Amino acid sequence: MEGVDHLAYERNKANFDVDDMKIVWAGSRHAFDVSDRMARLVASDPAFRKDNRVMLSRKELFKNTLRKAAHAWKRIIELRLSEEEARKLRFFVDEPAFTDLHWGMFVPAIKGQGTEEQQQKWLPLAYKMQIIGCYAQTELGHGSNVQGLETTATFDPETDEFVIHSPTLTSSKWWPGGLGKVSTHAVVYARLITDGQEHGVHGFIVQLRSLDDHMPLPGITVGDIGMKFGSGAYNTMDNGVLRFDHVRIPRNQMLMRVMQVTREGKCVQSNVPRQLIYGTMVYVRQTIVSDASSALSRAVCIATRYSAVRRQFGSQEGGVETQVIDYKTQQSRLFPLLASAYAFRFVGEWLKWLYMDVTQRLQANDFSTLPEAHACTAGLKSLTTSATADAIEECRKLCGGHGYLSSSGLPELFAVYVPACTYEGDNVVLLLQVARFLMKTVSQLGSGKKPVGTTAYMARAEDLLQCHCSVQKAEDWLKPSVLLEVFEARAVRMCVARAQSLSKFPNPEEGFAELSADLVEAAIAHCQLIVVSKFIEKLQQDIPGKGVKQQLQNLCNIYALNLLHKHLGDFLSTGCITPKQSSLANDQLRSLYSQVRPNAIALVDAFNYTDHYLGSVLGRYDGNVYPKLYEEAWKDPLNDSIVPDGYHEYVRPLLKQQHRNARL
Amino acid sequence: MEGVDHLAYERNKANFDVDDMKIVWAGSRHAFDVSDRMARLVASDPAFRKDNRVMLSRKELFKNTLRKAAHAWKRIIELRLSEEEARKLRFFVDEPAFTDLHWGMFVPAIKGQGTEEQQQKWLPLAYKMQIIGCYAQTELGHGSNVQGLETTATFDPETDEFVIHSPTLTSSKWWPGGLGKVSTHAVVYARLITDGQEHGVHGFIVQLRSLDDHMPLPGITVGDIGMKFGSGAYNTMDNGVLRFDHVRIPRNQMLMRVMQVTREGKCVQSNVPRQLIYGTMVYVRQTIVSDASSALSRAVCIATRYSAVRRQFGSQEGGVETQVIDYKTQQSRLFPLLASAYAFRFVGEWLKWLYMDVTQRLQANDFSTLPEAHACTAGLKSLTTSATADAIEECRKLCGGHGYLSSSGLPELFAVYVPACTYEGDNVVLLLQVARFLMKTVSQLGSGKKPVGTTAYMARAEDLLQCHCSVQKAEDWLKPSVLLEVFEARAVRMCVARAQSLSKFPNPEEGFAELSADLVEAAIAHCQLIVVSKFIEKLQQDIPGKGVKQQLQNLCNIYALNLLHKHLGDFLSTGCITPKQSSLANDQLRSLYSQVRPNAIALVDAFNYTDHYLGSVLGRYDGNVYPKLYEEAWKDPLNDSIVPDGYHEYVRPLLKQQHRNARL
Repeated sequence: MEGVDHLAYERNKANFDVDDMKIVWAGSRHAFDVSDRMARLVASDPAFRKDNRVMLSRKELFKNTLRKAAHAWKRIIELRLSEEEARKLRFFVDEPAFTDLHWGMFVPAIKGQGTEEQQQKWLPLAYKMQIIGCYAQTELGHGSNVQGLETTATFDPETDEFVIHSPTLTSSKWWPGGLGKVSTHAVVYARLITDGQEHGVHGFIVQLRSLDDHMPLPGITVGDIGMKFGSGAYNTMDNGVLRFDHVRIPRNQMLMRVMQVTREGKCVQSNVPRQLIYGTMVYVRQTIVSDASSALSRAVCIATRYSAVRRQFGSQEGGVETQVIDYKTQQSRLFPLLASAYAFRFVGEWLKWLYMDVTQRLQANDFSTLPEAHACTAGLKSLTTSATADAIEECRKLCGGHGYLSSSGLPELFAVYVPACTYEGDNVVLLLQVARFLMKTVSQLGSGKKPVGTTAYMARAEDLLQCHCSVQKAEDWLKPSVLLEVFEARAVRMCVARAQSLSKFPNPEEGFAELSADLVEAAIAHCQLIVVSKFIEKLQQDIPGKGVKQQLQNLCNIYALNLLHKHLGDFLSTGCITPKQSSLANDQLRSLYSQVRPNAIALVDAFNYTDHYLGSVLGRYDGNVYPKLYEEAWKDPLNDSIVPDGYHEYVRPLLKQQHRNARL
Repeated sequence: MEGVDHLAYERNKANFDVDDMKIVWAGSRHAFDVSDRMARLVASDPAFRKDNRVMLSRKELFKNTLRKAAHAWKRIIELRLSEEEARKLRFFVDEPAFTDLHWGMFVPAIKGQGTEEQQQKWLPLAYKMQIIGCYAQTELGHGSNVQGLETTATFDPETDEFVIHSPTLTSSKWWPGGLGKVSTHAVVYARLITDGQEHGVHGFIVQLRSLDDHMPLPGITVGDIGMKFGSGAYNTMDNGVLRFDHVRIPRNQMLMRVMQVTREGKCVQSNVPRQLIYGTMVYVRQTIVSDASSALSRAVCIATRYSAVRRQFGSQEGGVETQVIDYKTQQSRLFPLLASAYAFRFVGEWLKWLYMDVTQRLQANDFSTLPEAHACTAGLKSLTTSATADAIEECRKLCGGHGYLSSSGLPELFAVYVPACTYEGDNVVLLLQVARFLMKTVSQLGSGKKPVGTTAYMARAEDLLQCHCSVQKAEDWLKPSVLLEVFEARAVRMCVARAQSLSKFPNPEEGFAELSADLVEAAIAHCQLIVVSKFIEKLQQDIPGKGVKQQLQNLCNIYALNLLHKHLGDFLSTGCITPKQSSLANDQLRSLYSQVRPNAIALVDAFNYTDHYLGSVLGRYDGNVYPKLYEEAWKDPLNDSIVPDGYHEYVRPLLKQQHRNARL
């Protein structure tokens, strides 16, 4: 980073050691080192430039991504990077590509659902990228409801093959990334039919394209589904459409870890528990939560730095104007998002632990915590991705007009992030699953079955239904026990009230449908409690570094009190707090904002993002925004010529009045 | 619209006459006729095709817009369209272009701020498009704070000229639409300096480009500021950057309706009141509110139709799945947006009346209602644009994964709409202006000065601070008087509470800064009340047509009760309602959703949008979504070849293992 640091005076204000905070953010010194090394590697390699992305046509953009993916793979091999390093490198390349699905879905699907034999056959090919795979589940007419998929896989005992077929238009596979133009293979989900009987949806390894000339194999129609949101964003990805016309594959290409089809066409359950699949779900959703904190922190970093650079109003007699970060309106929108970035980071870290815990239990055939873990990850996936999508757009607005420029990085960040609200489970559908689990938990209270994990607090329902918040002055809101109790009380009271309303319906399913919007709110209350409580737990650990813990405490309090303010109706209507106490919480929030203000720049520096990764003129580390914005503008293709293409045909005739009989 | 109507069974369900509703939506039969005629004219002219927009490069896109603008102008002249018709035609062309600024800002600026003489000279040229103008106010470093603009206009008495100059980088004009590549002239805002003295910011007509060869005139540097959000969206517009190096213009090109500079360089106020400028602001913001209802209704139309087409879950034994519009979670997100579209339509209609009223009063030198009218339009601009931006994105999410496809129309609609939250006054800055006005109004209560217009209810503050909501059963919430009272009570109580908090600060400005986030909330409460009350007023009029009024009543109640639910904290903390009453409001909402459900498709049909204007495969009138989505996909340039460009260079080498020493 050359030249003057225009934000040095901001960095000097911080009351804590930013290098120590970087370790906390990364999770460990090792994680920091890997991340830092990979980020620099990518940033310093001109092959990974991305600032020209928005100006490329779809074809150029896509070819450019293929080039980067090949280059990344070359570097991974040349430098003999570990799996962890390779993943980080791809992360910092920061461009959706077929490799995401190959490594993130195709390989894990074979690992999770393939037999030992299948793994031995397919994984080495995939690891060396001798084949490239994708994950073909979603269909044109079927997303959330996996059981509604229409593609069929019919066993033909004569040839010992499955016949994969797309019986309708809506059964066309639609959306899978990497499918459209690149993948040679796919894990295809289809309804298994043997001997005229249906046996549910299963995964099948299907070769799509020739390994010689990349042409689709007979019976396969495959292509790209067209442009998506944003100018760069996911348009670097070949989300695809795929149709099968009676395509035959050998029987051993059905993924048979859980259920096998024998030579005779019989279905035989293996002794591997079906629940294993939930373990994979916990894993995938944990990575989504972790990605949420990355995307959110990136947007917050841009908005925070630019809020310190930008000045507007408040000049006295022609002096410099006020930095917009000094306005309470700006702080009250920005700092809760900064706090959320940290909150999501820590809850994501905890989910890693949860995944390990679940995995160990599954290996010991202990399924007792699985429903709770599943509900918890579903809820956190929903909560963090919705909040992050909204937050990125809020950060864009917090940058004023310039946030609308592609060079701010925020439009593309939004466009590339928002699908997270839909993929791997639509956020509302997931919350309904959480609600269903919560209603079940409530109904079992008092039955002797103890709620576990993140629902353990429900065992104290009786107390929580009656407790009174003890806050008498603003600072009382800083006590972790107070915060925890009001969030627990709110969640329990909302759940119990919903359960009571449900019990009035003669048909429980009808009741659930009728009250679903209210049930979603109860699920949100529960999930917010999880995030708050995991943040508080984090603070109970030893956190070294000058001033670091104090900053995190401030952020934790901001996270919780801002939620309380946003969902005040919940807290008041359930009688968890009084209007007076809510007003004290507001006073406390304002005071917390003032404490964060001098530390704001250092708190986003702690994310340790390179300018390459941020990809934002507004978020530059050195704060040298305006000269660079000015410089960037001239790179637009429209500025290639002074008189624009089209002037002679379309503008000059207007000015020269070819049409003289205007009535206007 | 050819072929089968897949939504016919939905249309048959409606309990009202959709043709009558179309008139209500349009505002009058005349307005409907004009709108309908222009919409069809555009839709049937292949020159106005827009479905290929997202695939064009920036240069192609821009040239294409120039072509359309020229064609539109040609049609306007050939058909001898009236001003109203021409405006509607441009509206349905639905593509941001330099003409928006020429007609929407340049011409009105000269009309509003130019002397009779100046108008006579410049307007005929502009009307015939012999010159093309833009509006150059915003600078690279200066947006909201117009008084902070840095561009100077220094009077040189020797030559009787102004010298326009950009003294710093941040003084570069930045953002004006139409500036970058097309405009020949601009109204430039600059600090007037005569005889070494500053005299505030004024407008100057400056020629930018030669009328012969379109080259920038000496001393002028001008270009496009680069790509913006979205792939089409505002990238059809040449938002520009402009720098002046001591550019000289004749003295009579300062817009002098309000203040004149004499031959000697003296500043002389004319007898035209400065307040006239606020009249223009009221006008511009009224058009923004009207645009909000258009954008919102368009998104809602797409999401509603596709929610009736899309099915997911709920099939019994392999039967058809449930239409997603039947889910309460979908209804509780979608129907309040449908209600908002109608609410914003009616408040926009009322603002047209307000503008006329203000204009007439100004002509009679009556300025008494101006501050209230100004605050009211500022607040409504903020409220409706923020809500609309959020709603478009919500509609996109309500369409599930397919909403992310460009062919859904929603990504581009979002990208093209969101700047409305920032231009013509940042939404938060505007709400602070409203709050300032409200605090002043509260402080004058009891002083004998009666609050006027939309603040008239504050005269009843004493009652409203004490009243108790009378609701005892769910249906009580359907009474307009009940709704009005709780919204009035909430707004007054929030304003009065803020005023009391403010009074505790020794320095009022410091208090205002410290409490600004809370003040914004009070302003929002006031603005929401305006929308609710104007909807209720609309329903007190005679509205003909079978069942039409009943539908509007349902929507009005949904609009109000949904706000009550969303802002429950406000209503409960101020004691306007009880938790029990809020729960009854929720029950009533659910029942209203059920009443809207069979009418939903007809209620969006009433917007009378052509498929061309909607620009969405998901929102097609005939509901024939999936075959058309499938068809659209193949048009993507990536599908031009089966094996993608880049395969041989970047994919094949991976598959053929050029790099053999992988550690993975």
